[in-house]
Amino acid sequence: MADSELPTRPKPEETKEAAPAEGGDSKNASKNALKKAAKEKAKAEKAAARAAQEKAQAAAAEANDTAKGLYGPIPETADVISTTRFSELSEEYYEKEVTVVARVDNARVQSAKLAFLMLRQQGQKVQAVIAAAEPISRQMIKFTGGLNVNSIVQVTGIVKKPEIPISSATISHLELHIRKVYMISEAAQMLPMQVKDAERPPPTEAEEGQVDAEGAPIVTLKTRLDNRVLDLQTETSQAITWISSGVAQLFSEYMIKSGSRWIFTPKLVGAATEGGSNVFEVKYFKRNAFLAQSPQLYKQMCIAGDMENVFEIAPVFRAEDSNTHRHLTEFAGLDFEKTFQNHYHEVLEFAEDLLVFILTQLKERYAPQIATIQKSYPKAGDFKLPKDGKALRLNYMDGVALLKEAGVDMSEQERFENDFTTAMEKQLGHIIRDKYDTDFYVLDKFPMAVRPFYTKADPKDSRFSNSYDFFMRGEEIMSGAQRINDIKELEESMRSKGLDPTQEGFEDYLNAFRQGCPPHAGGGLGMNRIVMFFLGLPNVRLASLFPRDPQRLRP
Amino acid sequence: MADSELPTRPKPEETKEAAPAEGGDSKNASKNALKKAAKEKAKAEKAAARAAQEKAQAAAAEANDTAKGLYGPIPETADVISTTRFSELSEEYYEKEVTVVARVDNARVQSAKLAFLMLRQQGQKVQAVIAAAEPISRQMIKFTGGLNVNSIVQVTGIVKKPEIPISSATISHLELHIRKVYMISEAAQMLPMQVKDAERPPPTEAEEGQVDAEGAPIVTLKTRLDNRVLDLQTETSQAITWISSGVAQLFSEYMIKSGSRWIFTPKLVGAATEGGSNVFEVKYFKRNAFLAQSPQLYKQMCIAGDMENVFEIAPVFRAEDSNTHRHLTEFAGLDFEKTFQNHYHEVLEFAEDLLVFILTQLKERYAPQIATIQKSYPKAGDFKLPKDGKALRLNYMDGVALLKEAGVDMSEQERFENDFTTAMEKQLGHIIRDKYDTDFYVLDKFPMAVRPFYTKADPKDSRFSNSYDFFMRGEEIMSGAQRINDIKELEESMRSKGLDPTQEGFEDYLNAFRQGCPPHAGGGLGMNRIVMFFLGLPNVRLASLFPRDPQRLRP
Repeated sequence: MADSELPTRPKPEETKEAAPAEGGDSKNASKNALKKAAKEKAKAEKAAARAAQEKAQAAAAEANDTAKGLYGPIPETADVISTTRFSELSEEYYEKEVTVVARVDNARVQSAKLAFLMLRQQGQKVQAVIAAAEPISRQMIKFTGGLNVNSIVQVTGIVKKPEIPISSATISHLELHIRKVYMISEAAQMLPMQVKDAERPPPTEAEEGQVDAEGAPIVTLKTRLDNRVLDLQTETSQAITWISSGVAQLFSEYMIKSGSRWIFTPKLVGAATEGGSNVFEVKYFKRNAFLAQSPQLYKQMCIAGDMENVFEIAPVFRAEDSNTHRHLTEFAGLDFEKTFQNHYHEVLEFAEDLLVFILTQLKERYAPQIATIQKSYPKAGDFKLPKDGKALRLNYMDGVALLKEAGVDMSEQERFENDFTTAMEKQLGHIIRDKYDTDFYVLDKFPMAVRPFYTKADPKDSRFSNSYDFFMRGEEIMSGAQRINDIKELEESMRSKGLDPTQEGFEDYLNAFRQGCPPHAGGGLGMNRIVMFFLGLPNVRLASLFPRDPQRLRP
Repeated sequence: MADSELPTRPKPEETKEAAPAEGGDSKNASKNALKKAAKEKAKAEKAAARAAQEKAQAAAAEANDTAKGLYGPIPETADVISTTRFSELSEEYYEKEVTVVARVDNARVQSAKLAFLMLRQQGQKVQAVIAAAEPISRQMIKFTGGLNVNSIVQVTGIVKKPEIPISSATISHLELHIRKVYMISEAAQMLPMQVKDAERPPPTEAEEGQVDAEGAPIVTLKTRLDNRVLDLQTETSQAITWISSGVAQLFSEYMIKSGSRWIFTPKLVGAATEGGSNVFEVKYFKRNAFLAQSPQLYKQMCIAGDMENVFEIAPVFRAEDSNTHRHLTEFAGLDFEKTFQNHYHEVLEFAEDLLVFILTQLKERYAPQIATIQKSYPKAGDFKLPKDGKALRLNYMDGVALLKEAGVDMSEQERFENDFTTAMEKQLGHIIRDKYDTDFYVLDKFPMAVRPFYTKADPKDSRFSNSYDFFMRGEEIMSGAQRINDIKELEESMRSKGLDPTQEGFEDYLNAFRQGCPPHAGGGLGMNRIVMFFLGLPNVRLASLFPRDPQRLRP
């Protein structure tokens, strides 16, 4: 049933022994060569035997344990525990006792009398120390230093100023001197991937299974996505998921403020009306259904239904066999559709202001997250917005001229035979950045020949259309247009594009125009692409929680 | 391909001649008997001939037309037209000139010198009058009175106080004396259904095709949904779609304020993990995929990925062959999942406050819409909320006791063999309304036997579970629980429910717990059901833009 090409269990060669029970730096533990699998097994058995022996010794020692009740499984209590978040911690907490809940990022026994924990909370790290001194016992130190990496623990301790800042911690100017440590959720000793190994940007496929200069395993994007729950725990992933959340939030904020109604149109549709080959087929009781490739026809039907201004935030499905850095088979679509009074530029300006609002507010509200992400993905640099707060708008033919000026062969585009290629779009992005100092811009007036049937032709020059694309760093993030709202014009346009208006599945859509429909325009944004290009991520999969592509259906 | 049982074209017998060209009341025009189809055709041909003749006459008369340029197709102009909305109109506009864009709800020629238009804007109606007086010509009166019903027109006129209020208009204390009238989008003469006929609540199937006491055709819910674009144009539909929008908006507002992250989890999944029979199968390139029945496993994986507090607004797919008033195969799900520190009641209280917030704010923000809807659906009455602003919470067994007290046989429920039946739930709703004066309440501590495998058992009494359902007017709108976050406990629970933890598709989910996962709880709300029960609608399809059920895949 599920994707059999993909590993369904953590491969032993990809795992790494987490937190050895006694001493040693986990960084140098088990490299990921295939032949080590057998060794690992023997080691695990030995560890189990040792664990049993230790348990017996522990039981014998328990009577003498001065730290009894200060560590171990979390005790049941009716007391309400008040915890402090890492993000709250500051110098003001020096010498105060706090209780935190965090993951063990690393655990290390230095000696019988001293152990270190690196604690991690949503990617942020704080060091904790435990030293033997009444009532802290050697047993408690052993327990603490032997905690499995990634376990979730509740730690109570005194916040201290460290002698020198702890460079390996995110919060380096304080450390926790442990008083109590309880297990909340224990992680397995073997993890398929270490969260710390996902903290570095993904390397190429060729580097998979290699180690880097410091001896740490290199994990590819594939390994990270296969183990996405661990991968989400890095500070960078945490920050990216905040930006995704922010884009959706800002889009809905802007739309609601404009008086728009939030709509939910069906994803299960009766016919493949928007291009048959790229549509997923669904078994629907005794017949077939299809997954909507966009809410295009339905949001227009809402306009015909007098809703005037509508938006939708919903998955969009594309059965396109594209295995590129920017294609997904399922992504979050941000769609809107709006009537206008005099000219479609009313809607175009509305959409330009929408994007300027989203991008400006992202910078304002998510500055710490953006800074975190830039540490991992610095290449693209800051996203440049137009200084005057208004989007740069050029005509399609201006774009053609700029590329021609730069020596690109634009003859096909000048003859309206083809839209820009991806390479042309990217080059145009560079040219516009150099010339206008912005990474966001709009091209208006695309040739009618390269746009879908429902696009309104420019009444003054029918070779062109009242349609526009939005670009971020030279890649398309939105396509939109004025739509034809006259039934005769619409049927003619369909026929001129080789579509049959009497084809099954179009009746309801076409009837909407037979019954009178006001002039309207709109657009559809790809949320994941906005996140990707805003942050300069190398792959759209990094901007999706659980990405779907032709090869990937899990996790 | 598409649903062949359903009509793909408006049936002539369902149509009604809209706005006869000369005089007469369209109310009495063509009844919908099958045998009339032929007559209609002949009539249409005759009308076409007459239209051609009129056109010739019109051309001849044009030279003498004093109203030339004041009516007809909308002229092209570079001027910016400023329009007034019906909702803005008030006594302050008396004697002022306004321009409105609206649909023709009805057009009627009274005499050669007088015609009436009923104009409709998002369901609201205003009367317009046109009388012959320089420069208004007889030709212009004929044009205006002969406008096809549902056409969109731009009308300029003087706002006047009518001698007596216009009872058939929504805004009865003013009328428009027409100066200019232009066609923006012409509706066909034949509509499959009149919007005015959809303004009355849907009758039973048996009444379909009948006429009511006033001779107006009765249209069933099926006809209305088949012609949903027209149906959406009624004032009641407009109001309902605002409430739907409001529920989504208020949910996201509350979640965002709580620090929650907006997530988008995949709807295309590799395995049917949540009960195989109710899942839709999708052709996914060379293999099969399934449509997610809920984001349950994925939102828990986000929690395991340290996201702490997440929410999702997305379609949910159920391949259940249920043809009831409250089941859809696709609906809008409002989901959330949250870690807690001490007790799952932290999350339960959070969810209770969420619902109180949504329902209270709906009443506050959408009072006019609620009043409009109640005119069509008065039966259920006002939705009663708890007076103290806190949800009423009872235990499941309290519910059993209340029903037993009322004489219901609860022996199966007392033996934990079955959950409440729908009839029991409804009765309990009445009992609770009578006793506690609220239509919203929560049942906590459901028997473990009736809950899904991932539900946490009550640590104090394993017959029960830390799970809850939310009810509105005695019908379930949310199910939620603390989830098991310990891998051993989870695997045991799966086995005890007859599930195999090693089954394909569960690995990624179970690995999330092997890698450590904090305690958490959550819930899933059905947006359409909240709208339905809040408003007391008789059918959930009225609370869905384009509903999907086993029989319906269109429009």
